[in-house]
Amino acid sequence: MIIEKIAESRFNDSVFESTVFGKEFSDHMLIAHYKDGKWGEATIKPYGPITMTPAAMSFHYGQTIFEGMKAYKNENDDVFIFRPEKNFERFNLSAARLNMPQIPKEIFIDGLKAIVDIDRKWVPQDYGTSLYIRPVMFATEEAVSARSSNEYIFAILLAYAPSYYEKPLSVKIADFYSRAAQGGVGFAKCGGNYAASFFPASEVQKEGYDQIIWTDSIEHKYIEEAGTMNVMVRIGNKLLTAPTSERILNGVTRDSVLTLAKDAGNDLEIRPVEVKELYDAYKSGELKEVFGCGTAVVITQYDTIGFGDERVQLPHLAEEDSFALNLKKKLKDIQYGLVEDPHGWRVKIEKEN
Amino acid sequence: MIIEKIAESRFNDSVFESTVFGKEFSDHMLIAHYKDGKWGEATIKPYGPITMTPAAMSFHYGQTIFEGMKAYKNENDDVFIFRPEKNFERFNLSAARLNMPQIPKEIFIDGLKAIVDIDRKWVPQDYGTSLYIRPVMFATEEAVSARSSNEYIFAILLAYAPSYYEKPLSVKIADFYSRAAQGGVGFAKCGGNYAASFFPASEVQKEGYDQIIWTDSIEHKYIEEAGTMNVMVRIGNKLLTAPTSERILNGVTRDSVLTLAKDAGNDLEIRPVEVKELYDAYKSGELKEVFGCGTAVVITQYDTIGFGDERVQLPHLAEEDSFALNLKKKLKDIQYGLVEDPHGWRVKIEKEN
Ligand SMILES: Cc1ncc(COP(=O)(O)O)c(C=O)c1O
Ligand SMILES: Cc1ncc(COP(=O)(O)O)c(C=O)c1O
Repeated sequence: MIIEKIAESRFNDSVFESTVFGKEFSDHMLIAHYKDGKWGEATIKPYGPITMTPAAMSFHYGQTIFEGMKAYKNENDDVFIFRPEKNFERFNLSAARLNMPQIPKEIFIDGLKAIVDIDRKWVPQDYGTSLYIRPVMFATEEAVSARSSNEYIFAILLAYAPSYYEKPLSVKIADFYSRAAQGGVGFAKCGGNYAASFFPASEVQKEGYDQIIWTDSIEHKYIEEAGTMNVMVRIGNKLLTAPTSERILNGVTRDSVLTLAKDAGNDLEIRPVEVKELYDAYKSGELKEVFGCGTAVVITQYDTIGFGDERVQLPHLAEEDSFALNLKKKLKDIQYGLVEDPHGWRVKIEKEN
Repeated sequence: MIIEKIAESRFNDSVFESTVFGKEFSDHMLIAHYKDGKWGEATIKPYGPITMTPAAMSFHYGQTIFEGMKAYKNENDDVFIFRPEKNFERFNLSAARLNMPQIPKEIFIDGLKAIVDIDRKWVPQDYGTSLYIRPVMFATEEAVSARSSNEYIFAILLAYAPSYYEKPLSVKIADFYSRAAQGGVGFAKCGGNYAASFFPASEVQKEGYDQIIWTDSIEHKYIEEAGTMNVMVRIGNKLLTAPTSERILNGVTRDSVLTLAKDAGNDLEIRPVEVKELYDAYKSGELKEVFGCGTAVVITQYDTIGFGDERVQLPHLAEEDSFALNLKKKLKDIQYGLVEDPHGWRVKIEKEN
């Protein structure tokens, strides 16, 4: 790894006053080039523009994948990242599906640790805020021909992350548009999945919703996921969530929340969840909570659910009665290094650079 | 429109010796920026790199759409483009579905004409070769947050196009992977559709096929399209093709070929075509031709079709007996300005710059 540090840091405390997610970039970025069948040495250097031809293949054929992680700081100025191996594995799964090269661990994991170490002053200390970490790979070969690129850039960018959603969301259950199909790329964290979701999201936003809960593309009968979140449903005291599949992203937060719920002795069911089941549970008063979980949003409650033209209000539970809020606190306490870490999820970033 | 001509042309005749599609770029490119809710003035300037942050949203969320057209030259050095209004309309349809801004006609159509005029010496004269025209729009806002970009670049690039496929192709009918879903983006010419197709294509290539014929994502029962082609099937003397839908690109070549077939009095049926119907027709000796049509490939015959593990060989028809070859000649003769143009498809590029 080549390290070229910035001459003078751009950091000042006002960065942490931003309320916008992912717009305040740190001093450095990591860049590695793939060409002639192999990765070159990764370089950490000052964050800034690169030159690229408008014929770079990612601008045309959308061969692009990414990951989202966070760095957290505790009161002793220790910096932690969370389950990075999971994101590394998923990145390479996405790469395989998009016909892109595998990224070696020495670039992804070692690169991640080095850049977060170097930019550690950009990691905020306030509980709920963090430094967002964005590994990304995109096609760069100069060619307009519909085939896989032979050249790629892998980059890691860091940007300030205030808390994502401050309030419970209102979400509409998809009954026309769809996000993923059997035999498609739903499980991959690839650009095209997000690009395809913006218009349907803007349509429900016109109706006053914040997000969509995606359903299967065949009958819109089963709940899949939402925006950048996996979805969990509490009916009575049972926590339900869809199994991951080729259509659903295998969320690290989802997995962590399920583990914490199991630790707490919660009643869990991982199986397809029907829209109708949700609606019926609402009617019978058994639908207690619906929430999303993901790295960016942590755990976010939904207080309004749209079933077709009907908008349904969920009960406001006191903090101690809410599965979502309890699990959220447990998860964050681990991430911020405030409590024991029984599953070894936390990775401390050592001061080395 | 601002025009900054190149100081010294990079053109020399050896460009036309290339056998690679879309790698030899012409002297100029057109670039326009969208920001603060509006398009700036388009500029035609020397083709070359632009600077862009690795946080540009298209690298992350894949918000990118494109078009593919061609410029043709006849023996009198007249340069023509083909039905540009169709590509203009489709570009804006794609833009709407991807939640990207509409591009005005003055930029797309007038820009197209101006740049092809300026780079007219890059249009080859050999029948079958052309100058490929690539309008493209991609997200450029510097932000890592899963939402629509507020800034875009629109570009037009020109690159030499030798004939695409020299020989008939062997294609496998998709029975696991899928390209498009109901409520998805299959009809849009957006990057994500192509990125998602490369791995499935590479899988069938390992089995010795060139391309996939996509089928519906629900049951893999109906034929949809192939690579960058709409698919036509000839059973007996009847020409069949799937109706366009939200899952299938509305090809300009498809429409032109159907019109020419109608002109010729061919028996046409536009309706869902079952895989089984193809297979049964093969068994009964009625499956005469299967071919793809698209701007890049014009009309390309398939001589081998893979149904699951079975590889089926189609008859080699003499040129005068083949619908595909007859329609191809008719279409090319119009495109190259060799015959009358009864439908007014050809647009001559006047010398103005
Ligand atoms: C589509 C989608 N689903 C779910 C998630 C949650 O995944 P994770 O918990 O790994 O962040 C994400 C990512 O944030 C996502 O983009
Ligand atoms: C997926 C797909 N289908 C069909 C076509 C054919 O469309 P057209 O004839 O307008 O080039 C294309 C574009 O070339 C395509 O990309």
